[in-house]
Amino acid sequence: MAASMVDINSDLGEGFGAWRLGDDDATLRSVTSANIACGFHAGDAAIMRRLCADAAAAGVRIGAHVGYQDLAGFGRRALEVEPARLTDEILYQLGALDSFARVAGDRIRYVKPHGALYSRVMDDDVQAAAVVDAVRLFDPGLAVLGLPGSVLLATAGEAGLVTVPEAFADRAYLPNGRLAPRGLGGALITDPETAAERALAIVTAGQVGDIHGEPFTVWARSLCIHGDTPGAAQIARAVRSRLTDAGVRLEAFAS
Amino acid sequence: MAASMVDINSDLGEGFGAWRLGDDDATLRSVTSANIACGFHAGDAAIMRRLCADAAAAGVRIGAHVGYQDLAGFGRRALEVEPARLTDEILYQLGALDSFARVAGDRIRYVKPHGALYSRVMDDDVQAAAVVDAVRLFDPGLAVLGLPGSVLLATAGEAGLVTVPEAFADRAYLPNGRLAPRGLGGALITDPETAAERALAIVTAGQVGDIHGEPFTVWARSLCIHGDTPGAAQIARAVRSRLTDAGVRLEAFAS
Amino acid sequence: MAASMVDINSDLGEGFGAWRLGDDDATLRSVTSANIACGFHAGDAAIMRRLCADAAAAGVRIGAHVGYQDLAGFGRRALEVEPARLTDEILYQLGALDSFARVAGDRIRYVKPHGALYSRVMDDDVQAAAVVDAVRLFDPGLAVLGLPGSVLLATAGEAGLVTVPEAFADRAYLPNGRLAPRGLGGALITDPETAAERALAIVTAGQVGDIHGEPFTVWARSLCIHGDTPGAAQIARAVRSRLTDAGVRLEAFAS
Amino acid sequence: MAASMVDINSDLGEGFGAWRLGDDDATLRSVTSANIACGFHAGDAAIMRRLCADAAAAGVRIGAHVGYQDLAGFGRRALEVEPARLTDEILYQLGALDSFARVAGDRIRYVKPHGALYSRVMDDDVQAAAVVDAVRLFDPGLAVLGLPGSVLLATAGEAGLVTVPEAFADRAYLPNGRLAPRGLGGALITDPETAAERALAIVTAGQVGDIHGEPFTVWARSLCIHGDTPGAAQIARAVRSRLTDAGVRLEAFAS
Repeated sequence: MAASMVDINSDLGEGFGAWRLGDDDATLRSVTSANIACGFHAGDAAIMRRLCADAAAAGVRIGAHVGYQDLAGFGRRALEVEPARLTDEILYQLGALDSFARVAGDRIRYVKPHGALYSRVMDDDVQAAAVVDAVRLFDPGLAVLGLPGSVLLATAGEAGLVTVPEAFADRAYLPNGRLAPRGLGGALITDPETAAERALAIVTAGQVGDIHGEPFTVWARSLCIHGDTPGAAQIARAVRSRLTDAGVRLEAFAS
Repeated sequence: MAASMVDINSDLGEGFGAWRLGDDDATLRSVTSANIACGFHAGDAAIMRRLCADAAAAGVRIGAHVGYQDLAGFGRRALEVEPARLTDEILYQLGALDSFARVAGDRIRYVKPHGALYSRVMDDDVQAAAVVDAVRLFDPGLAVLGLPGSVLLATAGEAGLVTVPEAFADRAYLPNGRLAPRGLGGALITDPETAAERALAIVTAGQVGDIHGEPFTVWARSLCIHGDTPGAAQIARAVRSRLTDAGVRLEAFAS
Repeated sequence: MAASMVDINSDLGEGFGAWRLGDDDATLRSVTSANIACGFHAGDAAIMRRLCADAAAAGVRIGAHVGYQDLAGFGRRALEVEPARLTDEILYQLGALDSFARVAGDRIRYVKPHGALYSRVMDDDVQAAAVVDAVRLFDPGLAVLGLPGSVLLATAGEAGLVTVPEAFADRAYLPNGRLAPRGLGGALITDPETAAERALAIVTAGQVGDIHGEPFTVWARSLCIHGDTPGAAQIARAVRSRLTDAGVRLEAFAS
Repeated sequence: MAASMVDINSDLGEGFGAWRLGDDDATLRSVTSANIACGFHAGDAAIMRRLCADAAAAGVRIGAHVGYQDLAGFGRRALEVEPARLTDEILYQLGALDSFARVAGDRIRYVKPHGALYSRVMDDDVQAAAVVDAVRLFDPGLAVLGLPGSVLLATAGEAGLVTVPEAFADRAYLPNGRLAPRGLGGALITDPETAAERALAIVTAGQVGDIHGEPFTVWARSLCIHGDTPGAAQIARAVRSRLTDAGVRLEAFAS
């Protein structure tokens, strides 16, 4: 059965001091949920303050994009953190971002791990539990956004948290439902129209081609558009147009 | 008129990763208010988590010891931060610490600037206003702890915040009421009994000798004991004993 | 008397991890001297390695662009560093960059302070001496590149170092010979042709209009083109073309 | 055959800004080779400058203790760094430390990986080759200090570098010749006399008991004494005394 509505999420605030990746302003206009970096893999206080204000003003839901403490590696490098410390580091990030959300008259609604942490908690019980502990301790009303079939979503669900499965319009899938690694040819889909086509297929047919072109079943309450590539804003815009033209309602998963 | 009660505050959590300054456990037993570093000049998520838990369990009030983003300089170096960014950086620190306070079943009660920021807001209108803005935006119910006569306390008071003047038992005063710089001979009082004597004089007589031995009038709702010197825990213990032996009630300023 | 040759220098390697400012490859093609960030205000090991290799291959002179330890502020914030520590921090940066220059079969030839440190050593005896000490200790054969009339160049000259005065084609001057602050209207010259015109006037006439349009005498062995603005590479190219079209020889100041 | 001489190495400079681990001054008096942290897992410019000066003055050999870029984790957490970047990061550290060694009239003589990098290159071909590449590129005359039987020493030897096997007087061995993990009971030997006894057995008998008390053959040109435990300086002193009392000559492995 095809969905008639979906959420679009994208990573925002991936800068630090004088540096920026992506075009936050343009991307913000196309999404319903903003994964905002919290200062550990990217993001700083000024960026977070401004993005929370902009997202709140635009009615975009604020989510905490939590990551490993690794600015130099942009949170994309596997890092062996003790689980208790990982819980603490996520609590730190949630509190920091929530401070800006509240100043903007809003609050954070969900949590999504970034980069190497996102990859790790697909399969790792221990780090997944550490993430879930932090969310539960901070606010059990927060949703957890992640990959369908991941250990993270399973652990979060068992802990009574709302879980939100996401699909990727701009990343190729392996046959096992995992994302093709960035280094692999064809892993990144950079053509806006192709991404938009895939987005529509995912939402209305619940199916998209994997990296070998084989049909692959995927169900998602949210579509992820990456924000850190040159064409990210165009992809987000193309996806949004194609979906709304097809009568799909864009609606944040978080109330 | 002599006071019959006073608060004792001390800086805690001044570590980072594998490194530690001071003996937090010992100091925590002697104070009524804990100024906890928030990760910018010192402190990390694991240290903050544990200290908030310990302070909450001991009935010690949790305060945010906010500082410049300068781990290398321990927040003791003057740093020219734009006021809007400074407000944001303090909001970040307040949110992060509050996250741990709430996990411990408590919340932060007050804010105290650290090091070079503490010095700067004695006299600087702009940075003092930036600090006050952050406190007001985060929670107008938070108190501001600082030096009597400072621009910070004046600005905070004008903004309707509760202000708490503090005195130093372990630092010498200049005749103008400012602290003698750390580099000056006699600026640091390291003998526990001398510090305890000074504490008692401040609390019961509202007077203590300045660096030249001249009597100096000081009124304080809180006494600050530094936590980062080898004898800090002993000083805190000596001050506490002397005060309670003299019938002074130790009571946190924050309800 | 007009010069018939000049050096062009530009700041390169102003990135960190996943982040980049400017178009290093394009800028490198227009300059004769590359001021390479050394990891304190910008720059990391991978960026430095690649840039040293590229500069050496292109015959561009490698200079150390040394700054305050402040990635968050991109070295543009005044920071109160003890002079002995400043000397040590510059020695650290010189050694790190020289390592990559040597792997590329070359070595560093000069030192130029960045951002807030550049501003500070225009007038500050103590920090200027700290910089000069580091250069002298590391290699007294290194040149010091800076603003004519600055305390830095005077101190370096007294210490027996080669000093190289530079002028700015893309920044407006105050009547006193200092750069107009970035915040001031007209301080940044972004039109490539205007910058090229000014460059030619500086080199061939030793004169250029100050921010009020009054003629201003300037002599420079090197022209600085900033690398961190969107049009930096175009400005560098325009300056280079105009100068070579006018018969000015572009030649690095360092042998 | 028993050795009549040995080197003693220890980790020094494991501080950062206001923070310190260990007693560098005391430890320096007992060793012949100093593994100095280079700012990535610990160490800063001021600490490195002072330690190089002190080591050079005391005739102690200066080695680069290189690690992952992870101050928060003290370089003890596994971090997935691309091999090319790892080579660059080690070149950066070598250059920085050599700068201070040269200011002290000396130069670095050897390289030893720290913490999680030390563990990784015991078995990992790729990261071991990355470390060896950096050493070779920087100066093929540098020795590599590490665990006998490690991939690192094998790779370094194949690359034509001098390799120096070390043994541990204050750590227990597993039967396979690896160090017992720090978390394991009995892994750390904290009693100075026990450590001294083991040191003597290693040097004179080439044998010491493993963690189960079984005899274990070990040959080492250098003995490592850790510097980051409270009793490190006493252990170093006890080891030194026992060895010299037994007629063993203490001599740095690097000329």
